This record gives sequence, structure tokens and C-alpha cells, in this order.
Amino acid sequence: MSNTRPIQLLPIFHIPEIRPGDDLPRILIAAAKKSDLSFRPNDILVLAQKIISKSENRLIDLTTITPSKRAIDLAAASGHDRNRKDPRLVEIILRESRRIVREHPVLIVETHHGFVCANAGVDQSNIPGENLVSLLPHNPDASARKIAQALRKLTRKKIAVIISDTFGRPWRLGLTNVAIGAYGIAPLQDLRGSRDAHGKALHATVIATADELASAAALAMPKSAAIPAVIIRNFAFASSTAPATSIIRPPNADLFR
Amino acid sequence: MSNTRPIQLLPIFHIPEIRPGDDLPRILIAAAKKSDLSFRPNDILVLAQKIISKSENRLIDLTTITPSKRAIDLAAASGHDRNRKDPRLVEIILRESRRIVREHPVLIVETHHGFVCANAGVDQSNIPGENLVSLLPHNPDASARKIAQALRKLTRKKIAVIISDTFGRPWRLGLTNVAIGAYGIAPLQDLRGSRDAHGKALHATVIATADELASAAALAMPKSAAIPAVIIRNFAFASSTAPATSIIRPPNADLFR
Repeated sequence: MSNTRPIQLLPIFHIPEIRPGDDLPRILIAAAKKSDLSFRPNDILVLAQKIISKSENRLIDLTTITPSKRAIDLAAASGHDRNRKDPRLVEIILRESRRIVREHPVLIVETHHGFVCANAGVDQSNIPGENLVSLLPHNPDASARKIAQALRKLTRKKIAVIISDTFGRPWRLGLTNVAIGAYGIAPLQDLRGSRDAHGKALHATVIATADELASAAALAMPKSAAIPAVIIRNFAFASSTAPATSIIRPPNADLFR
Repeated sequence: MSNTRPIQLLPIFHIPEIRPGDDLPRILIAAAKKSDLSFRPNDILVLAQKIISKSENRLIDLTTITPSKRAIDLAAASGHDRNRKDPRLVEIILRESRRIVREHPVLIVETHHGFVCANAGVDQSNIPGENLVSLLPHNPDASARKIAQALRKLTRKKIAVIISDTFGRPWRLGLTNVAIGAYGIAPLQDLRGSRDAHGKALHATVIATADELASAAALAMPKSAAIPAVIIRNFAFASSTAPATSIIRPPNADLFR
């Protein structure tokens, strides 16, 4: 057992600024090569949501938005002066949302995908231009599948893909990266019925593996550096086509919304 | 940049069953050696809570517990037949708690440390014996400090220590590992005021680094194998004596309890 290869977190450097319509799989392969990396079978590629949104043109120019009355009211209630939200930004957040979970002090919503997060994942960081904001991909699981299938075609290797974003959570401060899209890896690992090292049955043990992988990859993606892609190597996992949205707790089983 | 060493997750094998009073730092050094590992400066050692609790004798035999009326009532309301909780277990959970957050379908409490988690972290898995349960360490930050200081004395190397446990969370299914104790590494990384790759100020960006490290280490700690210790190598971090309890969201700033 001692000679199992350790899990490695391999950042892909040299990824250029991604533009709408860019062929992300080819760009990733080229950047990996420049980083002295090549994909191996069963690598897990973790991609920051932002480059997916850029390649899919999920960018909106705030100057094209006319805020609704509701957005104007929510923005007015959001804070004072520089802390007040831009009503146009609030309008975009509302359009991306199914439901508002909390209005204050942070706008927490349920997105159309079902994710509960601040500002519906609408974000102004790491985007060129003063007025552009990025939205979450329409269907991050489909985006992950598309990229995994293209990588498989180009490299002839089976590579799992996770799309990650940075979310807050109740009870604990600080943000962590979670999986909002996945293909080729089971997002949840259900250990119920299996046994621990002492032979006792493990109760209620379902592990959010995709979220742990997203958090691990975040360690190799410092926010100030442009490293939106990390390969996780030597992690043994079960192949699966279950979507990352399967991690969303069904609203009727959720005690906190 | 391409020749930065990748972050590695190095499991420590050969850790024996830990007993109350065991000298954990010496055991870890011996087990690392048997695993062909030796500690290096700035390694982060992530330890599963269970071995800390065992070494600190935070184990209770259920047969010594007389449940209170409240524990009996809560147990009766907890489910039917085999799903009903043992009133003695509920009694221990109540003693470890400051407040009940939710009673049903899972007993979610705020522990005396301030952690919000299921069953106050009281757990029956990976413990020998039918009636023994483990409690969280009294002060996991102090436990982490003690181990880090002993390791420093024995190895002459500065090693950060994180004590992790497996918690659930609202909104998302599945458990992830989080940091309940830390020494030598800042649990939260505050990026407010710093700039992204496009020079834009990063707002509201505090990263729960210790939780991401705990989640990463969990990938090398499969639940069915006895691997309660993982070295994270080549992660650049700021040295700090801030406790892991600083990750707890202050109750008055928490919208969900």
C-alpha cells in the first residue's frame, strides 16, 4: 500500500484569456503541453466556472440592462453609498434566480439550476472590461460532458471533468469551491451499507466527492493568478454520468431554506 | 511557473489503533517512516478527529450513561424501530451541545465549541467495541497546537497541523471534511483588497483555506481504510496561530440558525 502513487494537484498554466466561442478543449491541451503536462487516463480535470462562462458567452454588459422596479428596490435596500448594489446587477441576479432565499445582508438565491448561492453566481471578477459581468453556464453538467467528450476524442483518454465555483455556506465563514458541473465521475459516493476499518456498518455516510475534488483543486488555483484549470491525478474514482446537480439537496429535505 | 512543484496528498499508512494516552506525534513519525515518508518544513499534517479523540480518551461507554427525560423524549421522536436513536447516545449529544438547531430528521446542534453539526460529532464508527462512542476533542485547536509543537521538537521542522471532521451542510447533499482544529496555518485567507488577474479589486473574498485543505486530505483518507493522517506538501501558506474556531460564523451574522 505504501507505494500507491500520491494524489497530485497539477495546475495548467499558460491558459490565455478565454473569449466567446473559443475551443476550450484544444486550448487546454495546448496549455497543458506548455506546462509540461499531458493528460493521462482517469485524470480529473477541474475547471473554474469563469472560463466556461466566457467560452459560452455567458457575459452581459451592464449598460444594456434596464432594471425592474423590484431590482431597484432590492438595490436600494442593499446598503449605502459604495456598498449599495448596482440595480442593473440585481436585475441580472433576479433573472438568473428561481427564488430569493435571503435579501440581506447578502442576496442569497436559488438559481434556475437549483444552486443556493450568493448573487446567483453573477460575478464581476476576472473579467476584462468595466461593465461586463459573468453568469453561470446554462447547464454546467452539459458543459462538463461536452468538454470531457471533446478531450476524449482529441487525446483518446478517458478524462473526468468537474466545473467548480466558489460558494459561501451557512454556519462557517469563508468560501470553498464546490462542483456545479460534472461528467465521468460520481459526484456523491454512497458508503451506506459498507463497513469501516473495524467492520461496523457506516450509517448515513454519503461523501460529496465532487465538492472535495473542487476544493482540493482550488488550492492550486490562487485567486490572484490566472489558473482556471487543475488536473487531479491518481485519485481512484467510480466512473458515472450522474450530474453535479444531484448534489443539490431536494428542497423538501432541506431544513435551511 | 511551470516548474513549481505540484501539491501532493501523501497518506500516512501503518498507523496502529490509537489508545488513550498514546504519544501521537511519535506514532505518526514512525508510521510516516514505514510509509517511506519523512516530514519536510511547511508540510501540512491533516489528522482525522477520531485519532485525536482516542488519544485524549474522549470515548464513552454507552452502558455507563443514564439518559435524562429530554434525551428519552428526543430519542422516541427520532424514528421507528431500528432507526430510533439510542436515548443514551442522545444524552451524550445533549451534554456535548450548547443548543439544538434542528431536532428532526437529523439532530443538528451547536456544540460547546460553536460548531454546528449533526449529533455534536458524537460517533460510533471506526471505534473498537460495541458500546463505545467518540466525542470531539475538548479543544481541537489546543490539540493541534500540542501535536505541531511536539512534531517540531522531534523533527526540528515547522509543520502545520489541521484536525478534520466530516460534517454535513445545508443546501447540498453529502458530507465534506472541514477543519475543527488548526495550528500554524491561517484557517481563513482574506483576499479583500487584493486584486484579480485583471487588476480588479476582489470583494467579499475570504477563502476557507483550512476547510479546503481538510477536504483535499479526505480524498486520501478513504472511509473504509484506516488512514487517519495525510501530509499535504508544496502548498504555499501563511503561518498563523489563528484557531480553526475562527471559521465559525458568528451567530449574529448567521442567517441560518
